[in-house]
Amino acid sequence: MIRTCLAIVLLFSGLCVTAQNEDSIMIRRIADEVLVNGTAYENLRVLTKKVGPRLTGSPGTYKAEAWGLQALKAAGADSVYLQQCKVPHWVRGGKEEAYFYAGKGKPVPLDVLALGNTVGTGPRGLRAPVILINTMDELEKRKEEIKGKIVFYNYAFNPRFIRTFQAYGDANRYRSQGPTRAARYGAVGVIVRSMTHAADNHPHTGGTNYNDSFPKIPAFAVGVQDADKLATAINSRPDVMVVMKNNAKMLPDTIAHNVIGEWRGTEFPDEIITIGGHLDSWDPAEGAHDDGAGCVHSIEVLRALKAVGYKPKRTIRIVLFANEENGLRGGNKYAEEAKAKNEKHIFALESDAGGFTPRSFGFNMSPERMQKVRQWLPLFVPYGVYEFNTGGGGADIGPLNRSLGTPVAGFVPDSQRYFDVHHARSDVFEAVNKRELELGALNMAALIYMIDKYGL
Amino acid sequence: MIRTCLAIVLLFSGLCVTAQNEDSIMIRRIADEVLVNGTAYENLRVLTKKVGPRLTGSPGTYKAEAWGLQALKAAGADSVYLQQCKVPHWVRGGKEEAYFYAGKGKPVPLDVLALGNTVGTGPRGLRAPVILINTMDELEKRKEEIKGKIVFYNYAFNPRFIRTFQAYGDANRYRSQGPTRAARYGAVGVIVRSMTHAADNHPHTGGTNYNDSFPKIPAFAVGVQDADKLATAINSRPDVMVVMKNNAKMLPDTIAHNVIGEWRGTEFPDEIITIGGHLDSWDPAEGAHDDGAGCVHSIEVLRALKAVGYKPKRTIRIVLFANEENGLRGGNKYAEEAKAKNEKHIFALESDAGGFTPRSFGFNMSPERMQKVRQWLPLFVPYGVYEFNTGGGGADIGPLNRSLGTPVAGFVPDSQRYFDVHHARSDVFEAVNKRELELGALNMAALIYMIDKYGL
Repeated sequence: MIRTCLAIVLLFSGLCVTAQNEDSIMIRRIADEVLVNGTAYENLRVLTKKVGPRLTGSPGTYKAEAWGLQALKAAGADSVYLQQCKVPHWVRGGKEEAYFYAGKGKPVPLDVLALGNTVGTGPRGLRAPVILINTMDELEKRKEEIKGKIVFYNYAFNPRFIRTFQAYGDANRYRSQGPTRAARYGAVGVIVRSMTHAADNHPHTGGTNYNDSFPKIPAFAVGVQDADKLATAINSRPDVMVVMKNNAKMLPDTIAHNVIGEWRGTEFPDEIITIGGHLDSWDPAEGAHDDGAGCVHSIEVLRALKAVGYKPKRTIRIVLFANEENGLRGGNKYAEEAKAKNEKHIFALESDAGGFTPRSFGFNMSPERMQKVRQWLPLFVPYGVYEFNTGGGGADIGPLNRSLGTPVAGFVPDSQRYFDVHHARSDVFEAVNKRELELGALNMAALIYMIDKYGL
Repeated sequence: MIRTCLAIVLLFSGLCVTAQNEDSIMIRRIADEVLVNGTAYENLRVLTKKVGPRLTGSPGTYKAEAWGLQALKAAGADSVYLQQCKVPHWVRGGKEEAYFYAGKGKPVPLDVLALGNTVGTGPRGLRAPVILINTMDELEKRKEEIKGKIVFYNYAFNPRFIRTFQAYGDANRYRSQGPTRAARYGAVGVIVRSMTHAADNHPHTGGTNYNDSFPKIPAFAVGVQDADKLATAINSRPDVMVVMKNNAKMLPDTIAHNVIGEWRGTEFPDEIITIGGHLDSWDPAEGAHDDGAGCVHSIEVLRALKAVGYKPKRTIRIVLFANEENGLRGGNKYAEEAKAKNEKHIFALESDAGGFTPRSFGFNMSPERMQKVRQWLPLFVPYGVYEFNTGGGGADIGPLNRSLGTPVAGFVPDSQRYFDVHHARSDVFEAVNKRELELGALNMAALIYMIDKYGL
């Protein structure tokens, strides 16, 4: 009996080794395909340089959708189609400016970008005394002093976090909730220090969330060098005034689309694996890392698997989601449709952390599935992925996870440079490295290959 | 007895856990110090922007040495000094040019840089038919066709290697041995395709090694776009001529110095731990990644350990080595002196692979030592170092390892972007990311802390 068991164990481990060898050979082929014939970088060049900024509802939205359909076709999708959804339509409204002065001093200009979804000051602008608030605790303590003022949140991006998304998680509320919390105490405007490790002065925009219970007040992001200047001025004399001017407004909802390319499964075509990034971007830049990279990563997964002759068992669906940045309507719509059609989604993977060198994948799924996937990690180490962590996913596939319980994962590249460019004018094609982008695509393709082959 | 053993085991593992906790707390303090108060980036700015290029023997050499002494003092070294060595003195000699033409066609300029150590063509230049050689095998097969020609090695940097230093190892011989091997068959000049993944057209220089048995012929590196152009021309017609002009020459040996900062050990001051990078750089750029980063990394190890109040048991010696690029005289001198003085070198660490985000350390030492060090790996994972590998070190500490048997290691950052800028005009301060640079320094400091504390 012991010998039989041993024989079975040996046989089984032999099979495992064979499988791993086959898989490692296949992943090597995928890697070669992406590194030698990859189209992700050229796709990204076209998306960033020919389409450019593509804030939801802007003309770029529809140019990007046309690009997505074409790119998915070129990558070899069996069918490509649009999934329509209603989306918010915020417009920046042209020129924005802000400056400060004290007494009869000269105005000092600030490099600013209005936060996404913010209201405008109107053509005459807003002029008010400014109050420097370093933390939310300080806001609460000084709530009596806020009325009629412009609140300047100067909370610094914390360099102590090694993974910069933690610094973002820490600082984010000043942008997302800061305007509403200040409005609650009677503030008339808000300026938020940009969330970045970069030493340059680019302001970093991003959505803010108004709360209908309080007035909607204009809110700007300011570059960190200018933030320091403003803080120094406020700390040196009590009569600093700030002027803000912008013409942003929220228009009625409009229409945009998730752009979808499908590659039909050969054995279990009803089982769907979704891979995606979001097609929209903030308007001041090209959205190269956020999230052009995720779009071209996802398209490359399809192209490369097809190019190496792989026949998927399940249906592979590449989704370029609409409106992640200021509404998440694309992600919500995708999950709604999936539910309404009773689709079977076995896995979804998102890339929305930039096109940098790979570090890991983060999974949100059952411990049993996690255990299964973890056994594959040695196949990924040669390609720079050292960890399969629990916790992860992506904004656009979150609704799928929450409403259908679909296991999800997020691609996790190195995060050091992400917040240098995130939501800033500097998020351009030139900030993306070809090899780093390709390594992301090939690791994503390898993961999809394994999940398609072995199921979850 | 079993209970006693168990108690001992528990006690021992308890001690281990306590030690690891203490160490993880200390490493966290080192990390905070580097990330919040770090000087590596500012030091690098001064070295690259105020000193600039510093090819051995050039005026930049001595400006860099003065900078190094000052920076090491500022970092808190107990003593700083110079260690003199004789160094080769190669000069580029001003303007270099190359172009090709066919028949009565217009000349097409090539963006070139003479290889380090190369001879000049003289003011009239060199004009000869060109022969396209793709591999060393092809050179051997076509050796009868080489005489009187300019050999154009067009061996492409292989994108299939995941770790780009392997691609460099693979392609390197065309630059280092190519000219001599072509001269052996009667070639009169050599042009080598640049070793890079970059899509731009910057030529990448680097040393070539002449063999005294064969004529010394002029040798240039050419940008990859121009290499493609030249190859296309040669493949389309048989009469392509190349003109090369440069005035490089090797002058008599001169003097340069290793710049050394010492922090005396409190318990075992005779045991020396060396940490270094090389101070020299190629002349067309600022030598930011190669190897300004290694210099400022090393200086930051000293500064940060001192700033957190650490008292080293052993003597920590920061060495900014002279002449790595075209002679290795600094590294050789350092080992010679160490041997002559019978110094006890317990460990040496070099950073000479760029200031990119950390990946691993590579060690060259006994399996027993490797086993000891590997136990520390979990302390490094939170800071992005996932592997302690065997095999590694650095050119400058190689002589110490070979002549004294000193255990050595090399810091291994992510390699994807290194050969974009390596030995090219684009190796400038702006190509270095502050956070990535700092993460390298803090991991190096953490490793030195562990080795100093526990020995090897």
